[in-house]
Amino acid sequence: MRYSQYLLNTLKETPADAEVVSHQLMMRAGMIRKIAAGIYSYLPLGLRSIRKVEQIIREEMNRAGAIELLMPMVVPAELWQESTRWEQYGKELLRFKDRKEADFCLGPTHEEVITDIVRREVRSYRQLPLNLYQVQSKFRDEIRPRFGLMRGREFIMKDAYSFDVDEAGADVAYDKMYQAYRRIFERCGLRFRAVEADTGNIGGSSSHEFMVLADSGEDAIVSCDSCEYAANVEKAELRDAGATAPAPTEALSKVATPNQRTIEEVAAFLKVEPARLIKTLILRTDGGETATVLLRGDRELNDIKLCRLLCCNEVELADEETVRRVTGAPSGFAGPVGLKGRIFADFEVRAMADAVTGANEADAHYTGVTCGRDFTVETFADLREAVAGDPCPRCAGKLEVWRGIEVGHVFKLGTKYSQALGATFLDAQGQEQVIFMGCYGIGVGRTVAAAIEQNNDANGIIFPMPIAPFQVIVTMVNPNDAEVCAAAEKLYADLLERGVEVLLDDRDERPGSKFKDADLLGIPLRVTVGARGLKDGALEVQERRSGTREMVPLAEVAEVVAARVRSALAG
Amino acid sequence: MRYSQYLLNTLKETPADAEVVSHQLMMRAGMIRKIAAGIYSYLPLGLRSIRKVEQIIREEMNRAGAIELLMPMVVPAELWQESTRWEQYGKELLRFKDRKEADFCLGPTHEEVITDIVRREVRSYRQLPLNLYQVQSKFRDEIRPRFGLMRGREFIMKDAYSFDVDEAGADVAYDKMYQAYRRIFERCGLRFRAVEADTGNIGGSSSHEFMVLADSGEDAIVSCDSCEYAANVEKAELRDAGATAPAPTEALSKVATPNQRTIEEVAAFLKVEPARLIKTLILRTDGGETATVLLRGDRELNDIKLCRLLCCNEVELADEETVRRVTGAPSGFAGPVGLKGRIFADFEVRAMADAVTGANEADAHYTGVTCGRDFTVETFADLREAVAGDPCPRCAGKLEVWRGIEVGHVFKLGTKYSQALGATFLDAQGQEQVIFMGCYGIGVGRTVAAAIEQNNDANGIIFPMPIAPFQVIVTMVNPNDAEVCAAAEKLYADLLERGVEVLLDDRDERPGSKFKDADLLGIPLRVTVGARGLKDGALEVQERRSGTREMVPLAEVAEVVAARVRSALAG
Repeated sequence: MRYSQYLLNTLKETPADAEVVSHQLMMRAGMIRKIAAGIYSYLPLGLRSIRKVEQIIREEMNRAGAIELLMPMVVPAELWQESTRWEQYGKELLRFKDRKEADFCLGPTHEEVITDIVRREVRSYRQLPLNLYQVQSKFRDEIRPRFGLMRGREFIMKDAYSFDVDEAGADVAYDKMYQAYRRIFERCGLRFRAVEADTGNIGGSSSHEFMVLADSGEDAIVSCDSCEYAANVEKAELRDAGATAPAPTEALSKVATPNQRTIEEVAAFLKVEPARLIKTLILRTDGGETATVLLRGDRELNDIKLCRLLCCNEVELADEETVRRVTGAPSGFAGPVGLKGRIFADFEVRAMADAVTGANEADAHYTGVTCGRDFTVETFADLREAVAGDPCPRCAGKLEVWRGIEVGHVFKLGTKYSQALGATFLDAQGQEQVIFMGCYGIGVGRTVAAAIEQNNDANGIIFPMPIAPFQVIVTMVNPNDAEVCAAAEKLYADLLERGVEVLLDDRDERPGSKFKDADLLGIPLRVTVGARGLKDGALEVQERRSGTREMVPLAEVAEVVAARVRSALAG
Repeated sequence: MRYSQYLLNTLKETPADAEVVSHQLMMRAGMIRKIAAGIYSYLPLGLRSIRKVEQIIREEMNRAGAIELLMPMVVPAELWQESTRWEQYGKELLRFKDRKEADFCLGPTHEEVITDIVRREVRSYRQLPLNLYQVQSKFRDEIRPRFGLMRGREFIMKDAYSFDVDEAGADVAYDKMYQAYRRIFERCGLRFRAVEADTGNIGGSSSHEFMVLADSGEDAIVSCDSCEYAANVEKAELRDAGATAPAPTEALSKVATPNQRTIEEVAAFLKVEPARLIKTLILRTDGGETATVLLRGDRELNDIKLCRLLCCNEVELADEETVRRVTGAPSGFAGPVGLKGRIFADFEVRAMADAVTGANEADAHYTGVTCGRDFTVETFADLREAVAGDPCPRCAGKLEVWRGIEVGHVFKLGTKYSQALGATFLDAQGQEQVIFMGCYGIGVGRTVAAAIEQNNDANGIIFPMPIAPFQVIVTMVNPNDAEVCAAAEKLYADLLERGVEVLLDDRDERPGSKFKDADLLGIPLRVTVGARGLKDGALEVQERRSGTREMVPLAEVAEVVAARVRSALAG
């Protein structure tokens, strides 16, 4: 492609509404343009990367035995009513009426439609297993669309659905998809983790998220430094170390702590480590109950673990009035000594002696507090967030903490949708059975955005070769120099002939501005064609990621560059 | 692909709501399934044909220098308000509100969105010309969706938009697209005509429709038997032959024609050819005017030509009361002799002598009517529909009449959208100029459906090789015979290795039912692997279209079949 004939305008300024680096760079590199909040056009350069990710996905889905079809974006309400999601799904489901006042929605996901297809087409166990997928534009009416393609409203997704005769079959299908997803993200050239995840409102019994690692990621994840264990931090299990409190060396003693409320304030005031404090949280559940939770002073509560223990959906810190009623003191001075009501504590608290807690009295704390002697706990449980260095729940390794961006999600759905819509089959004995399902999604645009979050520097994008919109950029230093022009055109033709995807920068622009654009676009290899190089009979080949430059004899450039592209694609 | 693992159920019965043969066959062959009125899922087999058409389109669009991008399906009202189409477009534009009560529509076409992109990206004449296209699902809320993919509501379309500095540039862009479209439909293996067409409500100055020829087509088109001229019958021009009436041989004479009203009735009653009658139509325009139009008795009025002459949008036959007021007689007895008011006549009427017309009196007609002597006409013009045998308006050839299905449409848009949305550029002199546009659409699903309308027989579809979902079907006559099974598997592998797209019918079904399915699916070549053939060391290769069968030595089958596929694709 000739740059001068392409629709590709780079921006010098970062758009004001672009908060994250992938959004900023995709806008600046002319990959996407906003049409409305959360709704983008993919300009030619952006579409090229999107299509590459799609192609890798298709190849791996087909290799795993999945079959491609295409469902409509406009879906009749009836199907969503059958699954009861018409009522349950929030405002993210964009509902509307057609000209005949019939109810429809824009599909945010297609469990209902695919289950409807399968219930009509599948009669016998002989037709199973099946795995059906599509690559399609979906719509979710996010209340706060942002971060460009990361959280858009209209977005391209690959969604697959597996259908099996029983749970064992569904497990096999799930594992196949899990492995296919690993291959997909490996082939995209991304560093990622597959982590255990919550199943959320889509239903189902187990799930993994595929997370592209990036410091800017929205999600915190943990992974073991020696085994395959990885999980969303919300889901990361911590074992009970089984330790009990050592023999205390101090007696319980009340000390004045005027205006010292937070862990940090009290620790500093009493000159002890925060880990010596017992954090006492007075909480209210969505069921209206009050509960006290104890954690080591340097730990954070994991809401999801507590909700699971208390069988509730949400917890929040109690208001000041409730704190005063429960503890008899203003907030900041709560502690378990003498406290009434249900007390829950993280496993670690059981091992604490000579600790510091609030005294349930304004401006006062206790020192010398020992669990078991000075207070008792109803239930010890795993209630805190995992941190780097925590022991792995599966082996003797230690956990590492990463930030990541969710790009894929695999779910075991069980029979939730097949039951609701009546997707059944006749087994070998002629008995009607309900189909077991799984669903498997990849955000295509999100994968490109996550790749950019993971691969960029101050100068712009650094595309991994497999998803780069172009593999090579040939920069004509001076297009008005006939010799430069001819040499660049020849190299362009030679590379195209070798199957390399080349952008020929034939614009009448200053060389510095062309180099800046090449860096911004993130094309993996750049060849500079200028008068100086031609005089020396060699052209400069620069690698975008490492910045290394090398002079390659003119006659060899096309072959050397083509070989590098092939080798980078082979991994 | 193995049939036993594929999602492909053929239907024996024709679905009751499928009126046209392509709809019937696409349903029966398991290519599509209806989700709601005019909304279909493309099952795997159907999607394969769709993708092949898409791929041919992409290759030819790229070859013509067009650049692919992708615009959203959900479009904000603001852009449509700028072009004023938000108000003008009928209920086919599906409008809705998002969760924040902002107005949106589902894009039925994307002139507004692309013009918005271009006005933001293009500043200088140096960036032009540009031709941008996408392949995308669109939505039109048809009041009466029908005929399967022919007139759906959600449908896949390739839409392209060209941008040029002036009208001459726009003409070049238009010609390039015209040629690209010819190549696309040729490469799809279809018989078609590119015809001059009306521009309709999309605006613009000139347009061609690409019509796939099929007896079941909705549109009538004409083409010259010796030059390239072709047009929609509504648009087909007929020249003034310049003839005047010969010397009359009869005097004007009133005859009784009791209850004889129609051309056919009067001609039969008076024992003359219908061509001897002058058809007299009393019409009302949408402006409320009354006009009388004369045609030769065997001709049909072309409304569009008359509207152009009268500068109105619509004409309809006047009601009985108006007819009585204008002619003084009940309808069925009107004629130009002695008639008041404006009289328009087709060129042919000028050459009529000794003709028959109504006498403007109940149950009476005149014979011996001669134009010029017995009545006068305000304007002679081309007012009738063309018929087979009419002279070509461009050369000495004669017109042929066909029925066709519109699958593509190219328009010169001029500056309608660029003016409305302010898409301008600075010319070489630094002056701001408005961009000239063209738009170019192909219905992808419609092309597949039209191909089936054109290519089928009593047994099913007959796919042209380039858009066949599979190129070859290998029919295992008895999958329980180990030798048959091994030979079929080997042939399957050998064909795949040669890049042939094969469906291996490995189902445990009766051979007759497998052959029936193969015919229904329309796969161009079938190889039958059975015990008898294996014994003789040869396999039967059958061509779907001609039905010819041939025994090919076992060792050569893969190569012979692969060669036939290659040769069919090469055209």
